[in-house]
Amino acid sequence: MKSHGYAAHDAKSALVPFSFDRRDPGPNDVVIEIAYCGICHSDIHQARNEWKNSLYPMVPGHEIVGKVSKVGTSVKKFKEGDLAGVGVMVDSCRVCANCVAGDECYCEKGMVGTYNGKDYEGNLTFGGYSNNIVVDERYVLSVSPKLNLAAVAPLLCAGITTYSPLRHWKVGKDSKVGIIGLGGLGHMGLKFAHSFGAHVVQFTTSESKIEDAKKLGAHEVVVTKNPDEVAKHVNSFDFILDCVSAPHDVNQYLNLLRLNGTMCMVGLPEDPVSIAAFSTIVNRRSFSGSMVGGIPETQEMLDYCAEHNIVSDIELTSVQKMNEAYERVLKSDVKYRFVIDMASLAQ
Amino acid sequence: MKSHGYAAHDAKSALVPFSFDRRDPGPNDVVIEIAYCGICHSDIHQARNEWKNSLYPMVPGHEIVGKVSKVGTSVKKFKEGDLAGVGVMVDSCRVCANCVAGDECYCEKGMVGTYNGKDYEGNLTFGGYSNNIVVDERYVLSVSPKLNLAAVAPLLCAGITTYSPLRHWKVGKDSKVGIIGLGGLGHMGLKFAHSFGAHVVQFTTSESKIEDAKKLGAHEVVVTKNPDEVAKHVNSFDFILDCVSAPHDVNQYLNLLRLNGTMCMVGLPEDPVSIAAFSTIVNRRSFSGSMVGGIPETQEMLDYCAEHNIVSDIELTSVQKMNEAYERVLKSDVKYRFVIDMASLAQ
Repeated sequence: MKSHGYAAHDAKSALVPFSFDRRDPGPNDVVIEIAYCGICHSDIHQARNEWKNSLYPMVPGHEIVGKVSKVGTSVKKFKEGDLAGVGVMVDSCRVCANCVAGDECYCEKGMVGTYNGKDYEGNLTFGGYSNNIVVDERYVLSVSPKLNLAAVAPLLCAGITTYSPLRHWKVGKDSKVGIIGLGGLGHMGLKFAHSFGAHVVQFTTSESKIEDAKKLGAHEVVVTKNPDEVAKHVNSFDFILDCVSAPHDVNQYLNLLRLNGTMCMVGLPEDPVSIAAFSTIVNRRSFSGSMVGGIPETQEMLDYCAEHNIVSDIELTSVQKMNEAYERVLKSDVKYRFVIDMASLAQ
Repeated sequence: MKSHGYAAHDAKSALVPFSFDRRDPGPNDVVIEIAYCGICHSDIHQARNEWKNSLYPMVPGHEIVGKVSKVGTSVKKFKEGDLAGVGVMVDSCRVCANCVAGDECYCEKGMVGTYNGKDYEGNLTFGGYSNNIVVDERYVLSVSPKLNLAAVAPLLCAGITTYSPLRHWKVGKDSKVGIIGLGGLGHMGLKFAHSFGAHVVQFTTSESKIEDAKKLGAHEVVVTKNPDEVAKHVNSFDFILDCVSAPHDVNQYLNLLRLNGTMCMVGLPEDPVSIAAFSTIVNRRSFSGSMVGGIPETQEMLDYCAEHNIVSDIELTSVQKMNEAYERVLKSDVKYRFVIDMASLAQ
């Protein structure tokens, strides 16, 4: 099947138009005409080989929404014309304990990434900066027509990445929750934690974000360059979601956790974090990490968003402006996620 | 009340005989004639001011067992002649949520340490390297006469420090558990994990410890200088208890945890540990810490030990040989805990 999109060909060059083949849809496959694709910071890391594992040519994009244009003969969940989404994975082993439990993102064999991966036959996978995609229905999500489709796209990565740990650590109306960083991930964590009924404290380095954080649902905002403001919250949080990739001192936040509290990292700092023994031993605290979520939980999240009218705050862009958007992401100059309008591919 | 024992007077000198006063027992107090006191590595850290918080003169010792010689008029749990123990704390605020829940070691006001602390009136506390101690019965543990009393002493710190996290993280017969380090803490962790029915893997840097680890209950022993041996266990552990204070790479062990696995540190490395983002994000792993346990759990542990015939492996020493014992602890030249016979004070 013929496809076209935008690809990186090496770590240094801008993304350029690219034509390629996808597999012809098999009996279990769904073909999606892509309407929108979010720009995740990890797209930039991988396009530029910053994680040292890049495979070229690379068509990035794993926050994909669009309309089903064709289904295989055995497909049950989808029919032509349905709205559908694809996140960070397009396959997994399906038989390990984690896959069977619906935690496919933790597949013991390793999930097949939507892009910059290889499928189990060894073929490169190509992501959502393109006009269409072919995916086994097991890894395709149903999207409600109730929501603004473009603003749904980031839910497939930024949304589930924050929803999953908040659910796993049982954040609810009795929880005091901290969100570190107000960007693509952080603003979704803030919306979800607020929606789950928690008392939410937004941590930010920037006074300019106070108003926005409150509008998005923060009950309190702490500007972290003021140590006195931070210290007021010592030993008080049940859960803190760390959405920051830039280097930062995690001990400052660990010390804010109460007995049995957890701080969970979903950003991906390049350098290891440094943890003092007493930061965890006092109050039996945990420092944890989490990545996206399994397919059942991703569907649960999308359904929850449709029911509670939650989407990402986005700025729509075009493939022609994509490289410029990358530069603005690196400067955190977006509220809060760029989404590419794939109609621009035809221009 | 007159007391005498051994004290450090500064960070550099050996411990020497020392006479001092303890408070006269009040209505809720228990007086214990100390029979044995364990030597915990933290005694050495504190005697030598390695944690930069030492108060002199210091009578160390928080693994205390002996016989009740007097009880206050309101004491209900103890009578003269009973065996009793005291661990790392002799008081706490008693009214914070953690104290009320029986987690006194996590007291929000800060527990009162058995030594190198100050009570709430501001008086220095003196520990178990002495002939007697006066403690409110709320912080005194009952000790069964079934067990070897000298070998019970280390249960008050090394025992509860390993028992508590194994219980908190629900280690049982379906668990695969790793114990890092075979010393005072590690050998107790190994005994408890085995007793709880887990499949236990002992990690050690030293081939010379393989036989001992197996005798103590390890189903497998991994010599960590052989990376291939370690790699065989990737993604397989439910829980790993890290009993090592010396610098070591925790990522090597985090990578052995399966989905939702926890590695808990109970040693106290002086330098911060360094954790790579992917070590926790893969498999949603947690790096945690834990300190001793509350009074109810410490009593539960002592009762469990009496029922299952669990004590520490000890080498008995005397106050006269204490400074030599300190040097041997620093060389890990003890199987696995020194206990001071306090009868030697009279010699």
